[in-house]
Amino acid sequence: MENFTYFNPTRIHFGRGQIAAIDGELPPRSRVLLLAGGGSIRANGVHAQVLKALGGRTVFEFFGVEANPDFDTLMKAVVLARAEKVDWILAVGGGSVLDGAKFVAAAVPYAGDPWEILQTRGSKLQSALPIGTVLTLPGTGSEANGAAVISRRSIRQKLAFIHPLAFPRFSVLDPETTFTLPERQISNGIADAFTHVIEQYLTYPAHAAVQDRFAESVMHVLIDEGPGSVKSPTDYDARANVVWAATWALNGAIGAGVPQDWASHTIGHELTALHGIDHARTLAVVIPSLLDVQRPGKGAKLAQYAERVWGVSGGSEASRIDAAIERTRAFYESLGLRTRLRDYSVDAATASEVAGRLRARGLLKIGERGDITPEVVERILRQAA
Amino acid sequence: MENFTYFNPTRIHFGRGQIAAIDGELPPRSRVLLLAGGGSIRANGVHAQVLKALGGRTVFEFFGVEANPDFDTLMKAVVLARAEKVDWILAVGGGSVLDGAKFVAAAVPYAGDPWEILQTRGSKLQSALPIGTVLTLPGTGSEANGAAVISRRSIRQKLAFIHPLAFPRFSVLDPETTFTLPERQISNGIADAFTHVIEQYLTYPAHAAVQDRFAESVMHVLIDEGPGSVKSPTDYDARANVVWAATWALNGAIGAGVPQDWASHTIGHELTALHGIDHARTLAVVIPSLLDVQRPGKGAKLAQYAERVWGVSGGSEASRIDAAIERTRAFYESLGLRTRLRDYSVDAATASEVAGRLRARGLLKIGERGDITPEVVERILRQAA
Repeated sequence: MENFTYFNPTRIHFGRGQIAAIDGELPPRSRVLLLAGGGSIRANGVHAQVLKALGGRTVFEFFGVEANPDFDTLMKAVVLARAEKVDWILAVGGGSVLDGAKFVAAAVPYAGDPWEILQTRGSKLQSALPIGTVLTLPGTGSEANGAAVISRRSIRQKLAFIHPLAFPRFSVLDPETTFTLPERQISNGIADAFTHVIEQYLTYPAHAAVQDRFAESVMHVLIDEGPGSVKSPTDYDARANVVWAATWALNGAIGAGVPQDWASHTIGHELTALHGIDHARTLAVVIPSLLDVQRPGKGAKLAQYAERVWGVSGGSEASRIDAAIERTRAFYESLGLRTRLRDYSVDAATASEVAGRLRARGLLKIGERGDITPEVVERILRQAA
Repeated sequence: MENFTYFNPTRIHFGRGQIAAIDGELPPRSRVLLLAGGGSIRANGVHAQVLKALGGRTVFEFFGVEANPDFDTLMKAVVLARAEKVDWILAVGGGSVLDGAKFVAAAVPYAGDPWEILQTRGSKLQSALPIGTVLTLPGTGSEANGAAVISRRSIRQKLAFIHPLAFPRFSVLDPETTFTLPERQISNGIADAFTHVIEQYLTYPAHAAVQDRFAESVMHVLIDEGPGSVKSPTDYDARANVVWAATWALNGAIGAGVPQDWASHTIGHELTALHGIDHARTLAVVIPSLLDVQRPGKGAKLAQYAERVWGVSGGSEASRIDAAIERTRAFYESLGLRTRLRDYSVDAATASEVAGRLRARGLLKIGERGDITPEVVERILRQAA
């Protein structure tokens, strides 16, 4: 096992009616900025529950945080928060709203240009407003980690920052708030969470037995409960298991002390930028092909994955790995996510385009061994055509 | 899944050489009370590493915290800490030292008689000194939870308290510090951790898929790595996996949102009090018999345990459960823990004695359904003869 530091201070209030727990989390005289996306939280009653729990506190609202939250949008919230001397940020929504809240919380007390927070990946952060969240869309894991991804469309940039101050102080996870999600959003969330596990698990063995088995556990739960939860969105237990699994997919536990390979996210971001494909769907395209191309380095873990996650035994190791990759593809498809570029009307020529963009950004060696060069990226995407 | 709140703010520094991380955790001008047990940390170099990491800070030392830490001993440390205006407590040792440190940290600023902290189970705690720990004996899980058990031999009492303020701010887990442990201590620790999992897992199904699979994961790791780590104490990877599994056995994750049954600890404490049997060994005696007696209520989870943890399939459910209980007994024995009262020269007559003591203490309904009456306890212990 590699040395690691594990830290996750977010208090999770999980279950039906837990939005009421907000009242015990914020000081009575707080001045709260409620950050949200579109109007869905008004339609499904979440907004009313949140306001009731906040009763008595001074609340300012900022709606309109978009998917892939934008720097310019969020800076308007920063201006509001500064003007109104807000002292708590409450995010109500999915991963984009939560990521946006982390940026706003860090930017409000920041002395310089807040864009620096992203340019320095959070390394210079000294303070941040406290953040609470009510998660209404599982998948990104933002409810229990200190990371955020922010886009700046005006200069075509998308950057991340990570800092212990960006952990939510608390997060409310009430599975019932997710019952009214569009099918596409919940299936994307499940696929995103599943891919987060792959990225921390399918590398090379590090003698990290707890982390491996926890990763396999999260995948089992998403496989067992995910497709059913998409088809029966109001099945509380299935959805509760999906929500809790998605949190563990990216709260730091399964990634502690092990190598990680975030190449599929790097490649996927380019496909989103070039072709507007949903983030999770880019992962569903990239992962099966990436696992196949990278099987020389990932063989030992792929074989373990085949056996422990998919129950594949017998035959040669190569055939077991083939089967595991095909099962992975079939899992994405079972959630309704297509896994080939052609399914999104994207031509194989995009492979060299993506490789070129990575080259231009200096991303010449990604993956857990640094052996995914732009040439390998091109091969992966040609195979995903 | 039942509603729950999950909170675990302890920062874990895991791996070789991580004692050095203490330097980044304590303010430079701290006045530190170093709490320890006997002299083993001097012999194995841990004490020297800790002092080096603390370099420059004012350090007071209190050695002599015994197994099952005693109120009267710890109050001497409280007097020292108050006199020297200590502002940090650093525990270096096993679960007893860590539990003792939690009590000292809570008692130092406590206005009333510190025994009240235990009498009120921590419910009235308002403040506590910050605590750091260097764990040298895995098993109790104290390094990452907010609970402590304190004995007061002068009045024959043993009470626990639990409070968020009692979480260590940080814990150092360097598996190498455990290499020189006596075999009996490490095997006891592994058995204790395994039993913690059973107590949070072998109840009735609560549709908590993540928690169930994490519990099974921790058991798998302890089964796969535990006996080998006892026999080869300097195998770093095996010991690292044991240490990390033991932390997860009692850091709140596997017990969130599920029923729990701590009857074996309750019964075991009486066997320790009456016969001086090591805590872990009392659990090894009680668990196989308790699972058998309680199988009507625990049948569904016992069958799941048989299949997923021990790979037992085929035959009737009753025979699969029989096999799982026998495998559990064999696991304790493989660690060197005997599983019958007679192995400790204890007569079956203790069964009615223990039942009587529980009756006298008003513990009339324990277990996850409250159906373990003193009569059932007597049956469990007669069967364990």
